[in-house]
Amino acid sequence: MPQTVASPPLESGRTLAARFEDVRGYSVELARDLSDADATVQSMEDASPSKWHLAHVTWFFEEFILNRFLPDYEVYDEAFSYLFNSYYDAVGERHPRPRRGMLTRPSLDEVLGYRAHVDAAMIRLLADAPSEDATSLVILGLHHEQQHQELFLTDILHLFDQNPLKPTFRPTEPRLMRGVALADGWSRFEGGLVEIGHEGGGFHYDCEAPRHKRWVEPFEIANRAVTNSEWISFIDAGGYDGVSLWLSDGWAARQEEGWQAPLYWHLKDGEWWTMTLRGAQPVDPDAPVCHISQYEADAYASWAGARLPDEAEWELAARDLEPTGNCADSKRFSPAPQAGNGLCGLYGDVWEWTRSAFLPYPGFKAAEGAVGEYNGKFMSGQMVLRGGSCLTPPGHIRATYRNFFPPNKRWQFSGLRLARDI
Amino acid sequence: MPQTVASPPLESGRTLAARFEDVRGYSVELARDLSDADATVQSMEDASPSKWHLAHVTWFFEEFILNRFLPDYEVYDEAFSYLFNSYYDAVGERHPRPRRGMLTRPSLDEVLGYRAHVDAAMIRLLADAPSEDATSLVILGLHHEQQHQELFLTDILHLFDQNPLKPTFRPTEPRLMRGVALADGWSRFEGGLVEIGHEGGGFHYDCEAPRHKRWVEPFEIANRAVTNSEWISFIDAGGYDGVSLWLSDGWAARQEEGWQAPLYWHLKDGEWWTMTLRGAQPVDPDAPVCHISQYEADAYASWAGARLPDEAEWELAARDLEPTGNCADSKRFSPAPQAGNGLCGLYGDVWEWTRSAFLPYPGFKAAEGAVGEYNGKFMSGQMVLRGGSCLTPPGHIRATYRNFFPPNKRWQFSGLRLARDI
Amino acid sequence: MPQTVASPPLESGRTLAARFEDVRGYSVELARDLSDADATVQSMEDASPSKWHLAHVTWFFEEFILNRFLPDYEVYDEAFSYLFNSYYDAVGERHPRPRRGMLTRPSLDEVLGYRAHVDAAMIRLLADAPSEDATSLVILGLHHEQQHQELFLTDILHLFDQNPLKPTFRPTEPRLMRGVALADGWSRFEGGLVEIGHEGGGFHYDCEAPRHKRWVEPFEIANRAVTNSEWISFIDAGGYDGVSLWLSDGWAARQEEGWQAPLYWHLKDGEWWTMTLRGAQPVDPDAPVCHISQYEADAYASWAGARLPDEAEWELAARDLEPTGNCADSKRFSPAPQAGNGLCGLYGDVWEWTRSAFLPYPGFKAAEGAVGEYNGKFMSGQMVLRGGSCLTPPGHIRATYRNFFPPNKRWQFSGLRLARDI
Amino acid sequence: MPQTVASPPLESGRTLAARFEDVRGYSVELARDLSDADATVQSMEDASPSKWHLAHVTWFFEEFILNRFLPDYEVYDEAFSYLFNSYYDAVGERHPRPRRGMLTRPSLDEVLGYRAHVDAAMIRLLADAPSEDATSLVILGLHHEQQHQELFLTDILHLFDQNPLKPTFRPTEPRLMRGVALADGWSRFEGGLVEIGHEGGGFHYDCEAPRHKRWVEPFEIANRAVTNSEWISFIDAGGYDGVSLWLSDGWAARQEEGWQAPLYWHLKDGEWWTMTLRGAQPVDPDAPVCHISQYEADAYASWAGARLPDEAEWELAARDLEPTGNCADSKRFSPAPQAGNGLCGLYGDVWEWTRSAFLPYPGFKAAEGAVGEYNGKFMSGQMVLRGGSCLTPPGHIRATYRNFFPPNKRWQFSGLRLARDI
Repeated sequence: MPQTVASPPLESGRTLAARFEDVRGYSVELARDLSDADATVQSMEDASPSKWHLAHVTWFFEEFILNRFLPDYEVYDEAFSYLFNSYYDAVGERHPRPRRGMLTRPSLDEVLGYRAHVDAAMIRLLADAPSEDATSLVILGLHHEQQHQELFLTDILHLFDQNPLKPTFRPTEPRLMRGVALADGWSRFEGGLVEIGHEGGGFHYDCEAPRHKRWVEPFEIANRAVTNSEWISFIDAGGYDGVSLWLSDGWAARQEEGWQAPLYWHLKDGEWWTMTLRGAQPVDPDAPVCHISQYEADAYASWAGARLPDEAEWELAARDLEPTGNCADSKRFSPAPQAGNGLCGLYGDVWEWTRSAFLPYPGFKAAEGAVGEYNGKFMSGQMVLRGGSCLTPPGHIRATYRNFFPPNKRWQFSGLRLARDI
Repeated sequence: MPQTVASPPLESGRTLAARFEDVRGYSVELARDLSDADATVQSMEDASPSKWHLAHVTWFFEEFILNRFLPDYEVYDEAFSYLFNSYYDAVGERHPRPRRGMLTRPSLDEVLGYRAHVDAAMIRLLADAPSEDATSLVILGLHHEQQHQELFLTDILHLFDQNPLKPTFRPTEPRLMRGVALADGWSRFEGGLVEIGHEGGGFHYDCEAPRHKRWVEPFEIANRAVTNSEWISFIDAGGYDGVSLWLSDGWAARQEEGWQAPLYWHLKDGEWWTMTLRGAQPVDPDAPVCHISQYEADAYASWAGARLPDEAEWELAARDLEPTGNCADSKRFSPAPQAGNGLCGLYGDVWEWTRSAFLPYPGFKAAEGAVGEYNGKFMSGQMVLRGGSCLTPPGHIRATYRNFFPPNKRWQFSGLRLARDI
Repeated sequence: MPQTVASPPLESGRTLAARFEDVRGYSVELARDLSDADATVQSMEDASPSKWHLAHVTWFFEEFILNRFLPDYEVYDEAFSYLFNSYYDAVGERHPRPRRGMLTRPSLDEVLGYRAHVDAAMIRLLADAPSEDATSLVILGLHHEQQHQELFLTDILHLFDQNPLKPTFRPTEPRLMRGVALADGWSRFEGGLVEIGHEGGGFHYDCEAPRHKRWVEPFEIANRAVTNSEWISFIDAGGYDGVSLWLSDGWAARQEEGWQAPLYWHLKDGEWWTMTLRGAQPVDPDAPVCHISQYEADAYASWAGARLPDEAEWELAARDLEPTGNCADSKRFSPAPQAGNGLCGLYGDVWEWTRSAFLPYPGFKAAEGAVGEYNGKFMSGQMVLRGGSCLTPPGHIRATYRNFFPPNKRWQFSGLRLARDI
Repeated sequence: MPQTVASPPLESGRTLAARFEDVRGYSVELARDLSDADATVQSMEDASPSKWHLAHVTWFFEEFILNRFLPDYEVYDEAFSYLFNSYYDAVGERHPRPRRGMLTRPSLDEVLGYRAHVDAAMIRLLADAPSEDATSLVILGLHHEQQHQELFLTDILHLFDQNPLKPTFRPTEPRLMRGVALADGWSRFEGGLVEIGHEGGGFHYDCEAPRHKRWVEPFEIANRAVTNSEWISFIDAGGYDGVSLWLSDGWAARQEEGWQAPLYWHLKDGEWWTMTLRGAQPVDPDAPVCHISQYEADAYASWAGARLPDEAEWELAARDLEPTGNCADSKRFSPAPQAGNGLCGLYGDVWEWTRSAFLPYPGFKAAEGAVGEYNGKFMSGQMVLRGGSCLTPPGHIRATYRNFFPPNKRWQFSGLRLARDI
């Protein structure tokens, strides 16, 4: 992922081309079992059609790279720039987000044709020692595509959950894991005057920089994420009705949307089930709870006599650990019980809500040009999540990575880990 | 259409079977060029996906006929009853209307398979002299399917208009008609104590009966529908801004939705164009105006110093004319100029708004059972339209036929014909 | 609007002046016990502040009469034309309806001052044999004021019901009436080719004319309105949950607004209570049910195996009866049991919903000028009510009087009387 | 909430009583020129009626102090607890916030009677050396009342702006200030490892504590707030249409609400005017801009090549300055030009938006009991403002004071001061 000269996988155009093919191929692989209709429908305004994801990430390469750096490149279809621009205001007009699901044409097959056209051109470009500018944008484009690969899956899950037939994205496997020894207890950190944020020298989003000093008080962080079984205790204890546990906005959201359990949960003969990418499944008591809003996470933490971690605390806890875990390469597509000794599962399984608002780091500068619209303009009204999920492509996550969503959203694979003052 | 013994086309099970195959086959023909995605998306709450139309009319035969009259019939898929019931509360729970577009499964192919399964069973049933009850329901089911054939087309047009690519349902043909001599002038009717409504002895919906006396003052009705060219004069004269021409609710709708022209119209280099089932086309000045609300029709009539006809007036004017015209069998799929002498174009081209509210006729009784939910419960808040349109299947329309829509709706093929007191 | 010379109570300016003082004085009397705040707040968009009613009816005299017919008249305050115009688009811009409750200034006292100023000028005008045009407008203005006197009361009731303190408009009197012998049974009418509508020769609104022929089938109409006790039976029989009894729009409204009983009803220790202008009171079982929508009325009628009357039927039944009853002069301000033999209570108590849409009579012409915006432009989406209520000023009601409200509204004093085919 | 013994103005019950009378008397003084109607109407959901403010702060003393600490205290009216509780869920049910404007009863006079009743009891309590707990709550209650005194004024301004008559709260004085020499330039701070937050030893809200370490990079902060004249330059330069200057949520708000200038501004013959508590006035070019959202403040800062300060930066800049300025005691009730050398106007004039989200300080603990609902539960979705405004009661503001509002709100007296990295 890093773009420094020393960074082995990307030290040459050739290697970048290989990585390009890997990432691009995985997107196509995700679409393998989807019908044209599956790939077209938009199940809510927050979600996008699969086809749109597949085309939009392709448009990124066409618009920002091929149009600039490949002299004889021929645009596949002029209309696609309008259709598949997402939010880059600097690039021009775009199809309105809530109407993305109206685009029954182009078909999924045509979109795959668009991908092939762009990929062929990209391979030509990459074969020929692209400039540093181009290379940086290619790397950004691949990370961008990885983000959409995760959204592709969260959005398909949401769509399939709307259908009373409860379709499956992948076969109903693997089964629940029983009898694992979950990680337990807390890990202590002394804090002090620390540095967080990306130190440069490798790929990262602009919002992860600059690395900067932060004073952190001593704290403890739980060795694993909160489990479904613990969440059921919260439900059974009346957590969803205990107004004093909730933030004011959280309580308003809970009332308005009638939350009684995480998204996708439903009771069947007295037992909790949940919709997954492998169809409706009984809730696994030992797996991390998932599909909760930050409001619910905060209320749970209050109920448990703890709190959510600050993003700096989370980063301190995670920075010496290998950024691997139950990510998309496990092909499980759902969180798994976090077993082990000491700190477990910081990477993968579920994005962990923090209590930090997504705000600029001191000295933050947005990237130049249209790609600078990537993060900075969203620095309002959103909360930071850390650590990736079971849908995150392997290699995409790192300790400094800042994901962000509004605190009332639940369709992401979001969970929580407790922290507390000492 | 009629179900009396004497009625030639349906005097035997054999003939009914033939008609069954005709009507059912036409629905499949309509789906010929649609993709799975085209057939799945719901473009607004008022519209339904093509796939849903195809399945729902099939469910009607399965639920009301096969389940009752064909002893060994095996339901194709139990879930379909929930998915494809429309509004028959007596039958049970149903998938919520605004979520019909979420059903990416079953696919269009599976729905066609469902149709084939039901059709095969129906042919078996019809081969064997079905009971009078069954026969009546089959005939009702065919008329029901014809109504959905028209909605299928109005809904596809609305969907395709959402797409900036402006797809075509059928090739861009035929061209505008130039140089026709439009019907002109007015026809006079003396009224008096007349009878309107269906006299029995043939198929009709419950809301068309009973035939009953009505006193009608002398009146004149225009020999043709209002044309696009006349409508453009209305626009140019500031009709859309002349508050005093409008009903109060109409003005509120015009303000809220920003109407400046009929639905689907847009200006291109100073000329009016419109979206059609044959793609975007210049507005034909001589063709009847289409895609207007009853509010717009009423405002136009005020501007023109006339009024909309009462439904009894319309029926008097139409009852001695052959119920044929530019209907779906012309395959034009858009209104055509109404040329001729005397009263023209009452059938076909555009549904003509009346100033009558859709209310029960004196002595009205809703049909028994679930099919009785067909019309009676909609007798509130809707206005009557008469005469069929260029999308109406041939043979489906008659002088007593009462169509109805809320006065603010514009996605139907609705236009107007003027009337006036003498 | 026109009136004959012979019309006794108004044959001279003097008598008109006396009537002017009566009507205008009653409005001030209504405001007697209201605070400045009571008179200012708007409890919902459908309702208007008392102060606004008092000023608006005054503005009518100033705008349409004094400004035209009294040469040296000085407008009280130029701003009031903007503030207190209701919906006369021809007169100019106006304060938006939903913001009427923002007008804490002018105060109630200032509005009473405005009234005194206009009244003094009117008395001067009326002293001097006003022209026929002026006289007609004065009479119209008085009827207009009477309509607002009724709305004044319906709106105050709605406001006071919002307040947990449940204030009273008048003292908690009179008590329930017990032991009355309610009118029972049905009255039969033969119908035939009849005439309805106002025949001229006295004051009436434009929408009551012209008198015109109508064919009416034989029918029966109930001798009294449906009572609260009967309504409770409907509730207890599950009428509010019996979807098959309801019009489709009615059921949607019932679901969205959660109706379980008439507006203002609430259960207290197992008994039904209702808010009235005399505070919260137990529901009187023998009095006509009140504060129901046309949807509820229609569902009740279906449940009772009957139907709502057509407005022509109602008019036939009422035209030979004296237009008097439990109106505002009883000072009861709530419906009373309808006792007697034969047809009772057609006038007063509750406005009776019909199944007729409020549409123009054949040959209808709206009045000329701004006052022509009075009725015609509301002829869409509303249903006719007949007969006046316990809030209607005496002398304001007649057999041909057509009141109208949307079918989902409940804050008016609206009830029902059953009819049926023979 | 705790205060030190040494704090001079409050060293004894007597002095506290004097302060109690001062603060309580000022509220009544604010209501001096309001009518009953002015004090009753709620102009939007965010605002409360004056009468409600006056009663709610009184209810605080009754509920939390008199009911607990004055043994023979008789509650004034049981219903008031329901009517005038604001958001203390622990205390019980309450009247819904959006319906506060429905309470025409009790009248303003009755509310003043309620105040007198409670004040008399409080004076008795304070005369008799109240316990430390009671004393703490009294002090809290007074600060609470001061907050509502400011809201009282912001809400009356909003109400009066709804009225086309543009009433004045106080006479049209004072005039614009011309020819002042505005403070200019920037002040530099070195930052480093600093402490912010309240150190204890005096009254403060729970959210200001605990004092804690923070690392701050060197920064500069402008010597005065951004002026109206500078804001007009921003408007003229197209700032409201420059999408790239805006946060994503900010742009959405600007589009949805159609912002083109600060709230209350309107053009009159080419000049900007604004509504004030002294009526409509020309915008003073030299005074700080006011009534802007945080989104607008952020966009302006981007346009100016600067940024909003972090709340820690603001506190560093302010902590050595006297917490006085153009506050409510100036009786100007609008921001005034900030003249002088070096840092000016940090206190008073306008609340200054920061770029800090309102979140708990490390180690934050909400106060115990119902008063603990004061701040903590609002720590989501709001941004911090610092420094008080021209409506803030004198003595109410301090360097550590954290005010907070959602970033889209504009009816508060909110402005901005620029900061920048070095």
